[in-house]
Amino acid sequence: MPESETQKNLNRPAVRILPLAGLPEVASGDDLGALIMQAARKQGVGCAAGDVFVVAQKIVSKAEGRSVRLDSVEPSERARRWAAEFQKDPRVIELVLRESSGIVRMERGVIVARTRHGFVCANAGVDVSNTREGTALLLPEDPDGSARKLQEQLARAFGCHVGVIVSDTFGRPWREGLVNVALGVAGMSPLADYRGQRDAHGRVMQATIIAVADELAAAAGLVMGKLERMPVVIVHGVALEKGTGSGRDLIRPAERDLFR
Amino acid sequence: MPESETQKNLNRPAVRILPLAGLPEVASGDDLGALIMQAARKQGVGCAAGDVFVVAQKIVSKAEGRSVRLDSVEPSERARRWAAEFQKDPRVIELVLRESSGIVRMERGVIVARTRHGFVCANAGVDVSNTREGTALLLPEDPDGSARKLQEQLARAFGCHVGVIVSDTFGRPWREGLVNVALGVAGMSPLADYRGQRDAHGRVMQATIIAVADELAAAAGLVMGKLERMPVVIVHGVALEKGTGSGRDLIRPAERDLFR
Repeated sequence: MPESETQKNLNRPAVRILPLAGLPEVASGDDLGALIMQAARKQGVGCAAGDVFVVAQKIVSKAEGRSVRLDSVEPSERARRWAAEFQKDPRVIELVLRESSGIVRMERGVIVARTRHGFVCANAGVDVSNTREGTALLLPEDPDGSARKLQEQLARAFGCHVGVIVSDTFGRPWREGLVNVALGVAGMSPLADYRGQRDAHGRVMQATIIAVADELAAAAGLVMGKLERMPVVIVHGVALEKGTGSGRDLIRPAERDLFR
Repeated sequence: MPESETQKNLNRPAVRILPLAGLPEVASGDDLGALIMQAARKQGVGCAAGDVFVVAQKIVSKAEGRSVRLDSVEPSERARRWAAEFQKDPRVIELVLRESSGIVRMERGVIVARTRHGFVCANAGVDVSNTREGTALLLPEDPDGSARKLQEQLARAFGCHVGVIVSDTFGRPWREGLVNVALGVAGMSPLADYRGQRDAHGRVMQATIIAVADELAAAAGLVMGKLERMPVVIVHGVALEKGTGSGRDLIRPAERDLFR
């Protein structure tokens, strides 16, 4: 590594991942952007250009009224049949079916579905944990739209460019455990494209596109914790370039997917 | 959230992700642990209990002599056939086949294989980018063993408990882009198990196991960058409990995998 590069890296500040404390319980109709700003002010959190706010899907969904009372759900015949077979609540299965564009697997009580957005995850993102008894929480209808709205609001209020990621914890093929991933993205490019750049040996890099929004979501996951008492996390110090793109860019079209 | 909880979280320090600068080019036979310690001392990097060192697979493989000169590789008939079909270097295909326990897909010039360790990734982890011309770099033979050796060395030298993750960037099903994941893990549990804990509504959490080692690797990936000029990254401030386990715990047995 040339000396200038070493020096630059010595001076490169660390990435910091900060929980945003003091956020109240979020309810339907709440102005989530305003709540985040209030909590940030109270905590004395400033903002630098390129900071990324990672916001747990749960509070976005709650603010957007995506909570459903199970006793308002009339299960279809199909939902009843599957619920009986898997010993599940037929109303929850009904919601999963409504949220799905396709079922990937249905086995041993676990439904892996492709959501209408295109995400592949357990129960099509329908969540009955960490919600009020007798309710289920659905994914935001348009996580990119949710991210965009928050992004504009936070950028305006802070007076600097920020990225916003709406995240959720998903299982994945081949590997154990859940990781936090990006569903909605705004104010940044979700993919960092290194193709054409030269590696340390001066050779042009081949197929190297990093899912930086997913790495940011995963990093935030370390601080959110699964109990999600910290549903908003700020990532400082990632040298993020302003970029366009959305969470949809992270969804691999089935016909291009060689990894399954 | 009760007041005490808020206060605790206000005081909770951020997670910091620090690149370790000043590491020399690593060569076969190098004592990687010693090189990391020297760079850390030069940079004035201390260590707190629970810090995690994330080390890029590439420098581990280099130190362990996993670089192979392509002109020393005699391709089999099968490798020649596939190489001709996909217009690849038959010697590289030969290495991929040797490193694989099974081929998941072979299409459009991309081979997705299950390595002998059980990882599913492109080219069975055989890398011909970011290596010297005419050479290929294989994954460590035993990434958990590599992590364990480094972990013991660093813990002894720093005089405090650390975790070590040997990481690599992998593609994944369903989603675009690569993310950094944990191959070898030592000094920590790769999975954080929240089952049985109560959520914010007092209900017992169901199937919630977070792949914390993969989240740590992804977080480190933000700082490593793909050009991997920062192959060692230190994650400070994750309230990591001492734990056991290994990177193998992150490999989902095919028969339990509902996500594919």
